[in-house]
Amino acid sequence: MRRGTNLPWVRDFNQGVVLEAIRLGGGVSRVEIAHRTGLTAQTVSNIVRRLLGQGLVVEGSDGGQRRVPLHVNPEAHFAVGVQIDVDETSFVVLDLGGTVVRRRRRGTGREPGPASVIRRVAESIRGLVDDAGVDRDKVLGIGVACPGPLDHRTGVVFRPPNLAGWDRVPLADALSDETGHPVIVDNDATAAAIGERWSGGAQGVRNFAFIYLGVGIGGGLFLEDHAFRGATTNAGEFGHLTLDPDGAPCSCGSRGCVEAYCAPGRVVAAVERRIAAGESSALAGQPGFRFVDVCRAARGEDALALDELRRAAWRLGCGVVSLVNLLDVELIVLGGKGLGNVGDLFRREIERTVAERAMASDLRPIRVELSRVGQDAAAVGAASLVLHTAFAPQQAGLERAERAPLAST
Amino acid sequence: MRRGTNLPWVRDFNQGVVLEAIRLGGGVSRVEIAHRTGLTAQTVSNIVRRLLGQGLVVEGSDGGQRRVPLHVNPEAHFAVGVQIDVDETSFVVLDLGGTVVRRRRRGTGREPGPASVIRRVAESIRGLVDDAGVDRDKVLGIGVACPGPLDHRTGVVFRPPNLAGWDRVPLADALSDETGHPVIVDNDATAAAIGERWSGGAQGVRNFAFIYLGVGIGGGLFLEDHAFRGATTNAGEFGHLTLDPDGAPCSCGSRGCVEAYCAPGRVVAAVERRIAAGESSALAGQPGFRFVDVCRAARGEDALALDELRRAAWRLGCGVVSLVNLLDVELIVLGGKGLGNVGDLFRREIERTVAERAMASDLRPIRVELSRVGQDAAAVGAASLVLHTAFAPQQAGLERAERAPLAST
Repeated sequence: MRRGTNLPWVRDFNQGVVLEAIRLGGGVSRVEIAHRTGLTAQTVSNIVRRLLGQGLVVEGSDGGQRRVPLHVNPEAHFAVGVQIDVDETSFVVLDLGGTVVRRRRRGTGREPGPASVIRRVAESIRGLVDDAGVDRDKVLGIGVACPGPLDHRTGVVFRPPNLAGWDRVPLADALSDETGHPVIVDNDATAAAIGERWSGGAQGVRNFAFIYLGVGIGGGLFLEDHAFRGATTNAGEFGHLTLDPDGAPCSCGSRGCVEAYCAPGRVVAAVERRIAAGESSALAGQPGFRFVDVCRAARGEDALALDELRRAAWRLGCGVVSLVNLLDVELIVLGGKGLGNVGDLFRREIERTVAERAMASDLRPIRVELSRVGQDAAAVGAASLVLHTAFAPQQAGLERAERAPLAST
Repeated sequence: MRRGTNLPWVRDFNQGVVLEAIRLGGGVSRVEIAHRTGLTAQTVSNIVRRLLGQGLVVEGSDGGQRRVPLHVNPEAHFAVGVQIDVDETSFVVLDLGGTVVRRRRRGTGREPGPASVIRRVAESIRGLVDDAGVDRDKVLGIGVACPGPLDHRTGVVFRPPNLAGWDRVPLADALSDETGHPVIVDNDATAAAIGERWSGGAQGVRNFAFIYLGVGIGGGLFLEDHAFRGATTNAGEFGHLTLDPDGAPCSCGSRGCVEAYCAPGRVVAAVERRIAAGESSALAGQPGFRFVDVCRAARGEDALALDELRRAAWRLGCGVVSLVNLLDVELIVLGGKGLGNVGDLFRREIERTVAERAMASDLRPIRVELSRVGQDAAAVGAASLVLHTAFAPQQAGLERAERAPLAST
C-alpha cells in the first residue's frame, strides 16, 4: 500500500485470527472463539479486551456470563473500493463488518489519458464518502481494481488492452495525491476473488478460481488459501488462454484467446454477423443492440441469441477445462457484469463442459458457482483488500507475507 | 511416504538449511554457511557438529582454521528413483550428494495389468542396488514418477491415459511390499521439476514450470518456491490444455489438447500422413519410422520432418503462452525423451512464440531453458524427493508443510 502510514495494522497474528472469527462468526462468544481458533480461553480473553479497547469490537447482550456475543464494530473503520473498467467505474464504501454502505456507478470517461479519469475518480470518492456520512479520518484507504497488466506492489498500471491510452500510469501514487488516502491497486479479477472470500463465499476449499467477466475476461486465483499473483503480480489472465492458435486476433496481441470469443462485445458481434447473414432474431429489429439486449432476447427464448450465449459459455468452459487441468482447483466462481442476467446459463454450460472434458473429473467433481457478491465483486474485493491488509492474520490469511528466500532454494 | 518408519528425518528446520547449504555449496566453510544462511556462527557450529556425528557431512582439508571445507558425505545415504512410462522404465540410484551413481532402462512390459510391471520394477531395483554396491540399509526409500492422475498422498495411481490397464493401483503400498523400502509416488513432471531444482537448475526464480515430454506431455509447477500439486495432487497437466475445442480427440477424453498435437507419436503420425499424401521426405523410404528417426531427419535438413517438428514446437509454445498468462512464471524448463535430440529447436521456437504472444512479455521476458538434468529428470526427481523429504528444511523448502486450516479462512 502506498503512503500507508498511520494504518492500524494488526501485527499480532492471533489478534487477526480472533478478529476474523468475530467478523465471520456473527455474535460468537469468547468460548466459541477459543473453540474455533484453538487458542486458549486466556489468550482469547486478552485479545478481545484489546479489540474492545481499540473500538474494533463491541459486545452484544443476552449471552449470559462468558457467552456475551461479540460483533465487529462496523463503524470503527471504512474502506473505499473502486473498479475501473472501460465504460464504467464502480464505487463502494465498505464498513469493517464487510457491508457495502454506499455504492455508485459512473461512466469512466473517454477523455484522452488517465489523468482526467483519476481526477474524476477522486472527486467521486470524496462525494461518495461525504454522502455516506463517513468521517474521512475513518477511511483506512482506497482499493482500486482494474484490468492488468499492472504491478500490484508499486501500484503502476501498464498497458491494459482494455484501457486505451494507459501506459505505465502510477495509479496508486496519483490517486493518493488526489485524495490523501493510502491506495492499493490490484488486478480486477484477483480483487474479485479476494472479495468473494472476504464476504464469506468460496468457503471450504483451499484452491479456487474466480472467472471475472467485465468488458474483458479475467481470472483471480486462490491457491492453497492465498491469493496467487505470480512473479510480477500478473497471474490469472484467464481471458488470454489460447483456444485457437490460428484464431481471431485478440486485443492482447495474440490470437484465439478466450476473450476474443467470449467477451460480451464478441458475443454481440457474432449475433450481428448472423443477422447480417440473414438469420432471424428478435434483435434484427434493434440496430445497435448491446450485450444486455442479447441476454434479454435469450431469456425470451430467441434461438439465435440463446445459441450464441451457449456457444460463448461452452468456449469459456473449454478454457476452464485448461485451468482445472493445470491447477487442480476445486471450485470455479463466476462473476462480473459480463454474465448479464444469464449467469445460470453460463454456470450450467461450464459445469457440464468441465464434467465432460477435464481430466480426473470423475475423481473430483469441480463445483461451478455464481459469485455471491455479484457484479460489484471487484470493487468490494478492492475495498476488502484494504481492510484485510490492515486487519487480517498476515501470516496465513489471504495474503502471504513475503518470505526471505533461502540461500539454498 | 508409505511405511516411512526409521527414516532419519531432519526435524530441525535449521539443520535442513545448513545441510542444503553444504550440499549445494561444494566445500563451504562454517563461516560461509553462517554468512549464507543468516544463522549465527554458534548455531552453525553446533549443527555441523551434529551432522558430522551422524556421518552426513565430512570435513575436507586445507582450509585453515575456521575455514575447513565441508562436504556432504555422499555415501551416507542413497535413494532409488524410478520413472514408469508406457514403453520404458528408467531407474537411477542417487547418492546423498545428488550424484547418479547408477542408471538403467528397461522396457516397461506389455503384460496385462500393473502387477507384473510392479514385480519387474522391484526386481530391477534389487539388481540395480546390488550392482551399485550399495548396502540396502543405506537406501532411504524409492521414489516413483509416473503419469497422472494419481494421489501423491496415498500413492494410488488412477487411470493415466498413457498407462493402459492401470486403474486405482496402490502403487506405493504394492512396491513397498515387494521391496521392503518406503515408497513415494509422484507425477512425472512434478518429479522432474523437483529434480531440476534439487540438482541446482532453475535457480534464481520463485516460479517456474517444467514441461515434460515423454510419451505424453506433462507439466510440473513450482510456485512461490514450492512444488504446487493442487487440491488432489493432480495439478500441472500442461499436455491437456485445450488448443482447439473442436480438435483431434485426445487420450484423456477431451479434444484438441496440446498432447494431441505435440506428443512424439502425433508428430510421427503427421509426418506419415503427409508422406502418404505424396510429399517427399527422406523418411518415405523408412516404413515404421519413429520419433527419433524424425528428429534425425530434421537434423539432416529434411524439410518435411523439420516442418512438423517446428509446428509441434510452435503449438507447444502456444500452450506455454496460456500457462505464462495464467501463472506469470519467470522460467520454462524443457525436458524428457520427447525432445529427442532437437531440444534446441523446441527451445527457440517456444521462446519466440512466448515473446510474440504472451501478455506483458515486454515487461518481463520469459526464459526458456533445456533441463540440465536431461532425459532422466523425472527419475532423478523422484529419487531426490526421497532425499528431500528426509533431509531438506521442511518449513520453507521444496515441500510446504500442511497447515491446519484456520477456522476463519
